Amino acid sequence: MTTNFKDLARIGIALSAERNINKLLEKIVDEARKITYADGGTLYILDQEQQHLQFRILQSQSMKLRKGGTSGVETGSPPVPLQVDGEPNHANVSSHVVLTKQIVNIDNIYKAEGFDFSGAKSYDASNGYRTKSMLVVPMTNHEEKVIGVLQLVNATDPDTKDVMPFNPERIDSVASLASQAAVSLTNRQLIEDLTDAKQRIEEAHLDTVQRLAIVAEYKDKDTAIHIKRMSRYCTVLARGLHLPHQEVEIVLHASPMHDVGKIGIPDAVLCKPGKLNDEEWVIMKQHTIMGAQILSGSESELIKKGQIIALSHHEKWDGSGYPNGLAKEDIPLLARVCAVADVFDALTSKRPYKEPFPNEKAYEILQEGREKHFDNHIVDVFFACLDEVLAIQETFQYES
Amino acid sequence: MTTNFKDLARIGIALSAERNINKLLEKIVDEARKITYADGGTLYILDQEQQHLQFRILQSQSMKLRKGGTSGVETGSPPVPLQVDGEPNHANVSSHVVLTKQIVNIDNIYKAEGFDFSGAKSYDASNGYRTKSMLVVPMTNHEEKVIGVLQLVNATDPDTKDVMPFNPERIDSVASLASQAAVSLTNRQLIEDLTDAKQRIEEAHLDTVQRLAIVAEYKDKDTAIHIKRMSRYCTVLARGLHLPHQEVEIVLHASPMHDVGKIGIPDAVLCKPGKLNDEEWVIMKQHTIMGAQILSGSESELIKKGQIIALSHHEKWDGSGYPNGLAKEDIPLLARVCAVADVFDALTSKRPYKEPFPNEKAYEILQEGREKHFDNHIVDVFFACLDEVLAIQETFQYES
Repeated sequence: MTTNFKDLARIGIALSAERNINKLLEKIVDEARKITYADGGTLYILDQEQQHLQFRILQSQSMKLRKGGTSGVETGSPPVPLQVDGEPNHANVSSHVVLTKQIVNIDNIYKAEGFDFSGAKSYDASNGYRTKSMLVVPMTNHEEKVIGVLQLVNATDPDTKDVMPFNPERIDSVASLASQAAVSLTNRQLIEDLTDAKQRIEEAHLDTVQRLAIVAEYKDKDTAIHIKRMSRYCTVLARGLHLPHQEVEIVLHASPMHDVGKIGIPDAVLCKPGKLNDEEWVIMKQHTIMGAQILSGSESELIKKGQIIALSHHEKWDGSGYPNGLAKEDIPLLARVCAVADVFDALTSKRPYKEPFPNEKAYEILQEGREKHFDNHIVDVFFACLDEVLAIQETFQYES
Repeated sequence: MTTNFKDLARIGIALSAERNINKLLEKIVDEARKITYADGGTLYILDQEQQHLQFRILQSQSMKLRKGGTSGVETGSPPVPLQVDGEPNHANVSSHVVLTKQIVNIDNIYKAEGFDFSGAKSYDASNGYRTKSMLVVPMTNHEEKVIGVLQLVNATDPDTKDVMPFNPERIDSVASLASQAAVSLTNRQLIEDLTDAKQRIEEAHLDTVQRLAIVAEYKDKDTAIHIKRMSRYCTVLARGLHLPHQEVEIVLHASPMHDVGKIGIPDAVLCKPGKLNDEEWVIMKQHTIMGAQILSGSESELIKKGQIIALSHHEKWDGSGYPNGLAKEDIPLLARVCAVADVFDALTSKRPYKEPFPNEKAYEILQEGREKHFDNHIVDVFFACLDEVLAIQETFQYES
């Protein structure tokens, strides 16, 4: 018994520590079989609707069987319903154990009454096995909820290899193991559910941010693809600047919002076919300030960075940009990055008022913009990473 | 020893099950003291930067002290640095235990060499206590990371109450407990971190959805407040219809997107001061279809519902609405809800082309719209919940 409980402490740690649910399920059956000297073990998990026991693990030492879990082999067995014809299913021993929360210990299923063992018996008949003793234990967690059932079969004398009844003295240990297992599974399931939920919401958020960016330029049909290219150019530059991975992710999703303030510019200015006059330029430049307003006050890192980019992506290295005439390092880094990416894409794209420039012409303009419009260092990175830039340009040519 | 390990299995379950980190920390010290008959116990947790041990729990039976944890009393003790002047801090016994991952068992700290116990000694001097035996145990989790330290003081003979050295036979148990504690704490911290992260992202998403709604009507200065009122009227109606809590939350956040498609309507139509002619109406009606396009293809329940509302909030009960001329229950329920809320708010608001109608006039129009424009049942709910509607109207009068 001492070894048993010492083992249990070790097992408890191992179960709490296991992050993979399939491995965890296997470990539970492995350890339960060790404690009870059981030849076989199965594990059922109650489904979310609390209507059926799902057959998750099947192990048999003498049959050399390992199904379910990490084995890659389906257990192939149908779920066990907790109700049949609207009545509690007490005929099935596992369902009975869930319903009563009581352990069932049977010396010989062929002599036992009160349960329907036709399933086990027909398995025996077709596989040349002989199921005899059986211990069925509810997995009850800390909220007193039964989340599954451990079914152990044929306790085997380690010396004589004879099948014997399950030792009642082992029942405490296996009940304790089943509880540890239930708590560990409940925790692990919670962690998985939270991780999934977090990921889904993250994706939903990124999706909504993208819609915000696209909506802002809805009147310009070329916009979605411009946003895709421009944001990816930004990531190439951010990686080239050795920004941390997280920052590169942020620039991918924040840079599309750079022109969100165009929403506030009247069509007469925004969609004017010819060149803007001075008065119209004053209005047009407002899109940086309006964009920052739209994105102001958020707790989200993504939106905060979007705000910075929206405000400052038209600043120039020599201080001649707008809206604040910032110069050099006073311009936030991500805004300097976006400036290069945005201008390159604008130059090489078709616009209502111009044909696309060939890349070579755009390269010249970037080079001429060194220390006037652009941060030298970022222009260097642009040319150092030109292959990646061109691959993006190639990939995102048309609306998909 | 048997009882010890049997206890350990029970404790393991209790630690895994505890959801409140402060309670968990207390439980760890309580149980460790029980196992070792210690008069006092303290628990340190390594901070995230892995630079300091934070003093989280202080218990002393004979001093009747319980600090930290759920006690509401600060431990008041400064963190213990793992490095002093750039060198590993082996002088402090707890820091030493973290650095070496080894248990330290001292019979009498006043006779021990190699550690600086001046802190404990000065505590003794000012409190009339006498620290003698000490057992210091690293809390090492399943990734072999030390996450904290358990420090137990003055093992006490349960019969004679004499202070004695810690029994080396108890060390296995307390080491096992410390491991269980470390794994449980790591799991619990992960669950807390995930829960916090999920909540932050959920809030960020709702915030971005709201920006999407506001951006769409950016040219109309009254819009933000219109959206606030209208979405809250919707929740009153949804609750009045006994929709599930979750659906009420969704309508609160999805209804503001109803006019997102207006982004695609030219200023000449959208901002026209007078009445629209037939041709302009054809264009204006497109905002429903454009809105649905902008919101199409999302995995998010919120955006999906937003899409349904954007498309169908101008349908009418008698089939005379747009864009699809749907009638009766063919109009999605949330769109029927938004129709009532949107019209009531439009009627009672000032618009560039009209003064607000008095509520009585708006009530008449809603009543006249029964079975023509509106779902009878929703109009009934509107009047049944009129107090709530008026409270919202009162609260959200001006831009805040």
